Formats: sequence, structure tokens, C-alpha cells
Amino acid sequence: MADKTLQIIPLGGLGEFGMNSMAIRYGDDIIVADAGMMFPDAELLGVDIVTPDFSYLKDNAAKVRGLLLTHGHEDHIGGVPFLLADLNIPIYGTAFTLALVERRLEEHSLLEAAKLNEVKPRDRVKLGPFEVEFIHVTHSTASSVALAITTPLGVIIHTGDFKVDQTPLDGELFDLQTFAEYGKRGVLLLMSDSTNVDRPGYTESEKAVVPRLEEIMLRSERRVVLSCFSSSVHRMQVIFDLARKHGRKVGLLGRSMLSVTEIAHSLGLLEVHDNLLLRPQDLQLADPAKVCVLVSGTQGEPMSALSRVAVDNHKHLKLEKGDTVALSARMIPGNERPIMRMINHVARRGCRIVFGHMTPPVHVSGHGSAQELKLILNLVRPKYFMPVHGEYWQLSQHAKLASDLRDHGLESSFVLETGESLELDSRGARKGERIGVGRVCIDSGSIDEVVEDMVIRDRRHLSEDGFVMPILAIDKSTGKPEGGPEIVSRGFLSEDNKEILTEAKRVVTRTLETSSEEERADWGVMQEKIRSDLKRFLTKQTARRPLIMPVILEL
Amino acid sequence: MADKTLQIIPLGGLGEFGMNSMAIRYGDDIIVADAGMMFPDAELLGVDIVTPDFSYLKDNAAKVRGLLLTHGHEDHIGGVPFLLADLNIPIYGTAFTLALVERRLEEHSLLEAAKLNEVKPRDRVKLGPFEVEFIHVTHSTASSVALAITTPLGVIIHTGDFKVDQTPLDGELFDLQTFAEYGKRGVLLLMSDSTNVDRPGYTESEKAVVPRLEEIMLRSERRVVLSCFSSSVHRMQVIFDLARKHGRKVGLLGRSMLSVTEIAHSLGLLEVHDNLLLRPQDLQLADPAKVCVLVSGTQGEPMSALSRVAVDNHKHLKLEKGDTVALSARMIPGNERPIMRMINHVARRGCRIVFGHMTPPVHVSGHGSAQELKLILNLVRPKYFMPVHGEYWQLSQHAKLASDLRDHGLESSFVLETGESLELDSRGARKGERIGVGRVCIDSGSIDEVVEDMVIRDRRHLSEDGFVMPILAIDKSTGKPEGGPEIVSRGFLSEDNKEILTEAKRVVTRTLETSSEEERADWGVMQEKIRSDLKRFLTKQTARRPLIMPVILEL
Repeated sequence: MADKTLQIIPLGGLGEFGMNSMAIRYGDDIIVADAGMMFPDAELLGVDIVTPDFSYLKDNAAKVRGLLLTHGHEDHIGGVPFLLADLNIPIYGTAFTLALVERRLEEHSLLEAAKLNEVKPRDRVKLGPFEVEFIHVTHSTASSVALAITTPLGVIIHTGDFKVDQTPLDGELFDLQTFAEYGKRGVLLLMSDSTNVDRPGYTESEKAVVPRLEEIMLRSERRVVLSCFSSSVHRMQVIFDLARKHGRKVGLLGRSMLSVTEIAHSLGLLEVHDNLLLRPQDLQLADPAKVCVLVSGTQGEPMSALSRVAVDNHKHLKLEKGDTVALSARMIPGNERPIMRMINHVARRGCRIVFGHMTPPVHVSGHGSAQELKLILNLVRPKYFMPVHGEYWQLSQHAKLASDLRDHGLESSFVLETGESLELDSRGARKGERIGVGRVCIDSGSIDEVVEDMVIRDRRHLSEDGFVMPILAIDKSTGKPEGGPEIVSRGFLSEDNKEILTEAKRVVTRTLETSSEEERADWGVMQEKIRSDLKRFLTKQTARRPLIMPVILEL
Repeated sequence: MADKTLQIIPLGGLGEFGMNSMAIRYGDDIIVADAGMMFPDAELLGVDIVTPDFSYLKDNAAKVRGLLLTHGHEDHIGGVPFLLADLNIPIYGTAFTLALVERRLEEHSLLEAAKLNEVKPRDRVKLGPFEVEFIHVTHSTASSVALAITTPLGVIIHTGDFKVDQTPLDGELFDLQTFAEYGKRGVLLLMSDSTNVDRPGYTESEKAVVPRLEEIMLRSERRVVLSCFSSSVHRMQVIFDLARKHGRKVGLLGRSMLSVTEIAHSLGLLEVHDNLLLRPQDLQLADPAKVCVLVSGTQGEPMSALSRVAVDNHKHLKLEKGDTVALSARMIPGNERPIMRMINHVARRGCRIVFGHMTPPVHVSGHGSAQELKLILNLVRPKYFMPVHGEYWQLSQHAKLASDLRDHGLESSFVLETGESLELDSRGARKGERIGVGRVCIDSGSIDEVVEDMVIRDRRHLSEDGFVMPILAIDKSTGKPEGGPEIVSRGFLSEDNKEILTEAKRVVTRTLETSSEEERADWGVMQEKIRSDLKRFLTKQTARRPLIMPVILEL
């Protein structure tokens, strides 16, 4: 029966941070786990978000049976609208995850046509030759699930993002039993979250932040301003409960904070007592000792509510001496500088500032540490193991950790990066063919949403040393230049050194004069000659390498 | 006698990370403590290094008596050549610090004329009305000193960078006694390092890394590749000694690693046993189990030795499966992404990788934590306190920490940022006038070394959305356009959307046609009209904001 090959094809998120997406194929049937996005590195100039290149799925459109979502974080669902725009496949996820996806689809006017299917933990869905069971796991957002995918060749378990929180705030325990059952029956392949593989021991429970947040509420004689990810509904519940206990009303600032609160409340995931909330416009009027403000913008995003509050540019909140501001989130690598800049502004307003590694913690990670990763490996006891969700060094460290537990049936671990694939059949598992994948850079809101690599390369070149543009007008009929060359430049030299551009004009004139009649008849050749002579001259004179772009104006 | 005002003028390093420099003025006499540089944020496009703007010193050239150096880190000495180029003042520092400065001065051909004065701890130097005593402190580099500056108004203590290492590797204890003596006699003003104010307790001794480094040497069956700052001579001594103990020879890779080793060795700060060192060209031939390589490039700098080794592009070292690579340094904020990229490449070569917060530590900080900062405050018991060396939030937290110790004579703390000043006289201390300071951006090696703000602003604009340049040729004699407008653009739209530029040409033509005769006679006006019409059109069509730069070619 199982005569076909099972292929595991990471479309994103392996060997890189963010935009998780994994295709699983058996013969002519494909299912996809997650479709995330990532925020770009600073070097992707002018790009807002990056998604996986979903071409592989589009090229095999007729085979794709559905998209399975593990949870509602942007690195797992942020790419959904960009996938659905071309390929309107059915989507499966828990109510909260789907509600967060709906928000995104609405922004892209894709909601109406979308085929959303709500599932609950322990539900099973049949998609072609696959049967998928959703298993509840604990994580920093609500209603997260792992996937147990029964295929003709055996069971694949994909953990999604998780930690093993033994005391989850919402009382919904990690479903260790179902993991154990699958483990007992035999699992072909485990794919498991590698984020915190370098941390020894256990990640603390979400409960660990309660004492610290309570201390902040108690000690602050004035306003308490807290920032966390809007999807961290457990964290928000703690804050709501503590605020109520200590006689503070809660104001919400930031679009995502407001809309996710509403969603979570409507789904019964967030309990909000009557009269607890304060309207943003009433924040300034309320007694500062009786106010707690929940603000979005933990990562120092320039347009976020907290960034605007920090520079005293928010209409509903003006920080004052004695207020306490706490960042209840980790710094995503690459965001340290903007976050520090925001923190400095908050400190300039005379506020107490709480963040980072101070103890007790004001934030705990949502991802399991080494002991939890070992626990899952030993519960599941897979035949093959493939670490997911991590940069290369994390994946390879996770594979190493698995090999330490090798005695119990684990045959091999495979460290794959996005673009590689794993093949399994009756003979075993091995790395398969490379799949053409990549990333798509998006400048959201602009007409030309996809920013091509070529455009980014030009921007990078421009950002380093600016540009120099020699312009030459020629008579179309005679082919002769009219007047001398002009040179325009920006981002290259300061005004004091502009005489170099005067000399550069002479270089262009000389290039024209020393070229043969034939060369001068072909302005394509002349453009290239001018570019190369100017480049040599400018590099020698200035040690810089601006973008040089000769323009010939035919009159 | 003390009838003049004492001014404390931070030229850099307060409220920002790096480029520390502090001017101290009494009447017509100025001394300067340190002249550092910093590496720029990613947003300073095409800038290599940033130094303080030393204009204040240049404007008061006749009054500047000398430059006092606390230690040899780049954020304290990196700006020396840029200061000395305009103002050849005498420099005072310990032998090792001066040797590191000499290297930099030589690169700028400033060494010959430089007036370098070597000092030892407990030496005193008289400079105008100031008498400066150098006091030994412990830090991550050798021969670090604090400054005790006796002025007509009282004593100023400037700690430089320090931690209170009770068991320094070189046996040179922190001179607590001299701090205590000054404290007993009375100190007017303390300026103290704020770097680690948010860390509770004590920073670990440099000795703490020994067990971890030894474990790495013992456990590795193949090569051990270690990277640390080349100025960390104590760390290097540990590595040399451990390598020798465990039968490994040491290879050095990277220019700074080689030259600083030589300097430290020649000054007796680094003991190198005979036959310990291996020439770089012999590295590949030696038995991998008997080799330790010390490589520069902990921060993922693209051209550093370690970055090149990581991508298998170094002629003397090819990493292989089973090698161990350890980063024995902290990640400087902002460098996380390039460091992670380098670590991923190392992991791809099959190497074990050790870095970061793993315990026992492979790196300890050189800056004192909260308890050490309190110890210094209580030893010195200053009348006034001014936290230095930190971002604004660190300075303000340090001031808060000092106010908790207020009972013992501390009258006030002052949180100053670069550009502000502190004034002290017989009546007390207060914030004084603002001093025109700033930063100078340098593109090293280029003719136009100083990169002006305007140029950086242009580059930033270009990097976001590229540029669009409408070009128009006009007849000089008639003032009439010849032919239609041309439009050139880069970094803006992909090829697919270039028809927008065709429409843009029509916009320019329309602007010309709808302008009055008078407007058309003034091409300055026309340039502005074309720019603003095009901007409106492009923003509406594309939601992007390229740099628009109309060019009028007079023929």
C-alpha cells in the first residue's frame, strides 16, 4: 500500500529565524503546516515583511489539500494572506488562531472567499491520504496545537511551538498522554521546536511572571505602563487580574492590543470584569495611582503606541516622573538598538523602567529548554528526527541532543535547511532533491508590493556610497553630443569636495574624445566606457564606489 | 583662591554607547579624559566609525593642557588620531595603553610628532591648576587606571572602566586603598562607570572563565578555535597557559591579534613560552588534537579572520567536523545578526560551537555590577555624583542607586548627556550651559573622510525607496525645452511596473504646459514644481517616496 515516497519540504523557518512553513507530500497529495512571515534584517532596505516563496505550492496547486495552523503567532500565520491570494486552500486551526488569521485576511480582502475550518484538540481531519490529529500544547499564546499526521508510511509528529508548562495559567495542560500514546504505537518522524535548545533545564512557567508583575503594581505610586505581545492572552489575563486586585483600571493602547483583546474576550479566552477597562481618552484624567496601561510595541517599532508614548507623541498618554514602564517580552534579535532607544526616551521622562534579565522575571520564554526537548523526544521515541524552528546552529545542536538519547529506536536525525527536502519510503529516510524555494520581500501598502532582489541590491549600493550620474545630450540626427557632460550626484561627497565632480566631467569628455568614430556611433558602448572610466577615476580619487549610471539624452 | 568655575563637559559617551571623552575646565585650563570612538548604528549608512566632535577643544586650543587615557579600548582611545590631527596635545597613559595608541597614530602618520608620556599607577602629573593621580583599577584589559584630579575646588575622581576583581589573573589588585584615602580626605565629584548598573550582585572575576576554557581544551578531540578581543591580554594569557598545559600549540590569526600579542609580550604583560606559537602557515599541517587557534573577529565583522574562517575563505585555516569554536566575548548590542550568521556558518562546517550565556561562562564582563558600583560610592563618598559611560537609562539608574546611599554626604547626583555641562563653584554644583558638541561620521580610507549628516540623510532616503530623476534639456538661448522629459530611476520599482515612469513623463510634460510664461522663465521654480507634482503622483500611485531630483540641462 505504502508504495510512494513521503517528502518533507521546509518552505521556510529552517536555518533562519521566522516565516515557518512546511509542506508534506505523499504522491499527488500535499498538506502544509503553517505559513508564517518574518520581519526583515536591516539590510533588506525598504522591505516591511518577508514571506516564504510559495511557488512550489502554486506549481502543484491541484495537489494541495489544506493548510494546518499550529498557533496564531505572525511567524506561523503572517504569510497566510500571501499564500491564499494565489491558492485558496482550506485552512484548519483552533478558534483563536483562525480569529487572528481572519483579521489578516480581512485587511487583504480575502476573508469572504476563505475556507476556514475550526478544530479542537483531539479532533481528526482527513486530507487525502493524511489523517491529522490536533494535540493541545502549552505556549505563550492560547490554543496552540501540535500535529500528529498519520500517513501510509507511518506517523509524523510536528510539535509546533511549545514549552511544557506544568502549571499553565489557563489550566489547559500540555497533552502529554496523547504524545505518549503515539510514542507507544510508534512514530516515524518527529519534528520539534529548536528555539531554546541552548538553554539548560526547564523554561519557567508563565506563572513565574506573576510575582514580579504584582510587585510592580504594588510598588508603583503612579501609573503602571506594561507592554507585551498582543497575542499573549495569558499574560494579559494576569495583568487584568492583578490590576483589578490592586484597584487599578486598565487602558489599552495600540490597534493590535485592542483588536486581539476583543477577539480573545469574545472567544472566552480572556475574562474582563465589568468596569475594569478605561477608554483611552480617559487615561489622562484618571488618578495615576489607579491606572494600568497595556500598550503594544515591545520591539521599539517606530510607529507603535509605546514608541510614540516614549517620545511624548501620543494623544492619550503622557508619561510623567514616577510612572513605571515595563517591557514584558523578549528582545527579538536585531531589535536591540531601537528598543534601547525607546528605553532611553522613557528614562528621560523620569520613569522607572523594568525589562530584560532582571529577577524575578518580567517575561518568560514560550519555548521549551533542553530538558523539555528531551522529554518530548523520549515520549515520542521517533524512528527519525528532524529539528525545526531555528537557525542552523540551533537545529544542529538539537540533532546532537537527540543523538545523546539514541538507544531507544532513533535511527537518524536530519538537519535540513529551507530549500532542502527529506524523503522517506519503505527503505528508510534520506535527504532528497533540492526544492526551488526562497523568500519574497514585501513593501506592504505599495503598488509594487513584491520588492525584487535587484531593487534591494540597488538600494544597498545607493545606501553605501550614493550615486553619480553623468548626463550627456546628443543630437539624434548627427549622433554628436550637444554641450558638455553634466554630472549629478547624491549621497556621495560633501559640498566641500564637489570639485572632484568637475574633474569627473573632464574624465567623461576625455572618454568621448579618445573613442573611435565607431564606438561613438554606439551609445550602448559609450555608456559602458564612460561608466568604467569614471569608476576608475572615482575609486582612485575617493576610495568610494558610488552607483555610476550614465544617461544619454537623445534630442 | 578657588574663585573660578569648574566645568565638566562630556564630549561623548554619556547617553550613548561608546566614544567616551570628557573635558574638565577650570578658568583658562582644560584637560581631557579619554578620546574614544564608536562603531556606527546600521542606520549610519556607509559610515565606518564615529568620533566625538572635538570642536570645543579646537576652539579653545590654547587652553588644552593634555589628554589623560584610562585604558586602551577603542571606545576610549579610538578617537585620539582624529583629535591629534588638529590639536597635538601631550598624552598621558600607561605603557600598554600608549602602545595601543601608537599603533593607531602610526596608521595616521601622526606618531612622530605625538607627545606621549608614560605614567605608572600612583604617578602624579601637574597640568595647569590640575594635579592628576593615576590609580590602578581592574578591567578586562591590562594596565587600566582611574583618575584622581585635584582641582582648586576639590578632588574629582573619574573611575574609567572597571570591575572590582578580587582575584585578577595578573595579580594586580584594584587599588581600593587609594580610593579609600581620597574618600577619607573628601571628594567633590565622582564620575563612575554605569555599564552594568542593571546587574545585581558582583561581576565574576576573570578567573571564572578558566574552568570552562579548560573543559573545552580537554573535551575537544580536534582543534580548539577561540576568539576574544585582542586587547583582552589576561584572557589570552589564560588561553596560552591552558594550551601549553594540555599539549596544544597556539596559532594566531588576524592582524590585531598578532600585533597586540607582540605589544603585550614586549611589555612583559603576556608570557609566551618558547615553541608555544605556531606560524599561521603551519596550522593546517599540525595534528588537530594539538592545536589551539586564537582568532580575531568576535563581533562577526565581515572582513575579520573568524568571519572568513566561518565561510571557509581563509588561507591558513579550514574548519572541519569535530573542531570546537568558542566566542569568548560579549555580543555588542546591534551585532547580534552578523554574529548569528557567522555562528550558523561555523555550525554548517560540523563544528561544536560555544558562546553566550552557557554556564560555566566562556566570557565574563569587564564592568562592575550594582554591588561594585555601591562599593565605589561608599569608598569615595563624594559630595556630588555624575554617572558616566552608559546610555541614558543606565545613567539614570546609576543615579537612583547612588541616591539610596544618600546618608553619607552625597548632596546631589547629576544625569548629564553629551552636550550638557556641569558647573561647580564655591556655592555648589548645577547643570551649566549647553556646549555645541556632536558626532563626526568617518568613512575611513576615503578622501572625504568626514561623512556629513546631509550625505547620510540622502543615503538613507535612497536606501528606503531609491530615486526618480526627471531630466529636461532646454535651449539656453530660447529657454525652451528640447524634446520631451526623460526619467531615470533606480531602487524604486521593479521592471514590471516601469510603465508608471512613462506616466510620470506625462506628469512632467503637463507641469510644463500648465505653467505660466513667467514660471517657465525661472528654472529654479520649475524644478520645484516638477518635484512636487511628481511626488504627489508617485505617492498616490505607488505609496512609495523615492528621492525626486529634477535635472535641467542647459544646452
